[in-house]
Amino acid sequence: MKVLVIGAAGMIGRKLCERLLRDGHVGGGEIGDLVMADAVPSDLVGARSIMVDLAKPDAPAALLASKPDLIFHLAAVVSGEAEQNFDKGYAVNLDGTRNLFEAIRAMGDGYRPRIVYTSSIATFGAPYNGPIADDFFHTPLSSYGTQKAICELLLADYTRRGFFDGIGIRLPNICVRPGKPNAAASGFFSNIIREPLAGREAVLPVTDDVGQTHASPRATTEFLLHGATLDSAKLGARRTVMMPGVRASVADMIAALRRVGGDSVVTRIKHVPDPATMAMVAGWPTMFETTRALALGFQAEPDFDSIIHAHIEDDLDGVFVR
Amino acid sequence: MKVLVIGAAGMIGRKLCERLLRDGHVGGGEIGDLVMADAVPSDLVGARSIMVDLAKPDAPAALLASKPDLIFHLAAVVSGEAEQNFDKGYAVNLDGTRNLFEAIRAMGDGYRPRIVYTSSIATFGAPYNGPIADDFFHTPLSSYGTQKAICELLLADYTRRGFFDGIGIRLPNICVRPGKPNAAASGFFSNIIREPLAGREAVLPVTDDVGQTHASPRATTEFLLHGATLDSAKLGARRTVMMPGVRASVADMIAALRRVGGDSVVTRIKHVPDPATMAMVAGWPTMFETTRALALGFQAEPDFDSIIHAHIEDDLDGVFVR
Repeated sequence: MKVLVIGAAGMIGRKLCERLLRDGHVGGGEIGDLVMADAVPSDLVGARSIMVDLAKPDAPAALLASKPDLIFHLAAVVSGEAEQNFDKGYAVNLDGTRNLFEAIRAMGDGYRPRIVYTSSIATFGAPYNGPIADDFFHTPLSSYGTQKAICELLLADYTRRGFFDGIGIRLPNICVRPGKPNAAASGFFSNIIREPLAGREAVLPVTDDVGQTHASPRATTEFLLHGATLDSAKLGARRTVMMPGVRASVADMIAALRRVGGDSVVTRIKHVPDPATMAMVAGWPTMFETTRALALGFQAEPDFDSIIHAHIEDDLDGVFVR
Repeated sequence: MKVLVIGAAGMIGRKLCERLLRDGHVGGGEIGDLVMADAVPSDLVGARSIMVDLAKPDAPAALLASKPDLIFHLAAVVSGEAEQNFDKGYAVNLDGTRNLFEAIRAMGDGYRPRIVYTSSIATFGAPYNGPIADDFFHTPLSSYGTQKAICELLLADYTRRGFFDGIGIRLPNICVRPGKPNAAASGFFSNIIREPLAGREAVLPVTDDVGQTHASPRATTEFLLHGATLDSAKLGARRTVMMPGVRASVADMIAALRRVGGDSVVTRIKHVPDPATMAMVAGWPTMFETTRALALGFQAEPDFDSIIHAHIEDDLDGVFVR
């Protein structure tokens, strides 16, 4: 089995590749070839790494040279950058993806890979009407969300026409993100867990009643692997599935951190409400109805404590600063 | 006021242009310039006609040469052809529209026209869950519907970014279509009214419990004109509005035809149920919840009798074959 990961150097891409290298198989199929593609080289050993600029017209030829049976397409210009740089966002997130889809169609000759595409809750926008089910309308309030929603539509149409076998994985908030605090407005969800566990202070810019639905990077890797192997005939015409997660308010998250790490860890969270962040958060979708994903066998963590434990085990070698 | 109609030679485009030429104004703004653009020349006199292939990269330059303040974009490769010819459908319906949007953005210099874009109920697909409201998910089951749904997303994003002031008009079934019977699967809705009124037989390929929501070409022209003039700030982030219409089963339609035309007209309808057509019809969206459109001031006919009367007045000079 030949596997291609586009966006292999990103946070999820890297964890997925590590997992594929460790397992050596996907759903019973032995991995004979793994190609890790990104705009920057991967430092993982054990697989081929190629550098590709998705916005370039020759990108698909390089990506598809090995005729991969399974393609994970995780690459994207992130939300903030796509909003700042209109052309770049559309060039990578829309045209880059469409060019890939077109190149697969052009191969013909019975070539029909499985494509696992990551989408985002940025495809949704207010007003909401209770929990967001899989039949709730797309109202992206960013160019990034627009690009993701368009690619979900293309994924479905190309699949319907038989050009490939696509499945979209619409992710909730990913928490706890390892690494440095980033500039994303939603970064505080990870910051207030990761930084205190590392002995550092973290700023909480919202009130603690703010809620969100979270899945760990570990659960996200499982979503992608399950998406790669499930019987896609069960998806019908709606090829993108909203993933499950743990619904937790910031207060719930802090209570979980206290249970797992103790009082001293929690004191490292500094409450500094920021009106601009609060205003942004107010428009985010936070509650999802994911019975469809659960019926298809996707599984999230049972509670936020488990999400913290996954971070400590996977990213901190089991050790945190009390 | 400078007005551009793209798709001016189509059935609705022609009626819209006739109306604009007759009125000489749109919502109080005097029309100083009207450009009628299509792939084929218009035979209407009183305005400039230009021939444009929307799939060509130089199309937007020709369309925007006059810097129109108001653009009606009605042009599309129709559903059946977009399904048969994948490349042509995407080239015209997606790339042609996106190129137009991009060219407007590139003009800069404060240029920010109103764009009235026609979308379609082909953006929806089963399974449904009661009447389709404006927050119901897009599940196009055709490439045409996919292209329309994508352009709705682009229209919203370009508007949100301030590149133009867009409004999408999502049309129900248009009935009664004048002219010859066409090959569209939904053509029978118009055929069973138009042909008998002209003294000809018409085949009804479905059982008479099949329902749909209908608006006349006359009401459709009003939708477009109202979309051109309403206060678009009221639309919020959801820029496309599902238009109202008359919900009628085929039995309701035939009863209306009997009231308006008499028994002899109705006897010209031949009931020849076709399993293939019945199967296709079963997946169509037929019921819509259009409180939003009504609140915004869009108005449909009160009943199907009015739709038949509009056809007789507008397309038959008031005369039909008893």
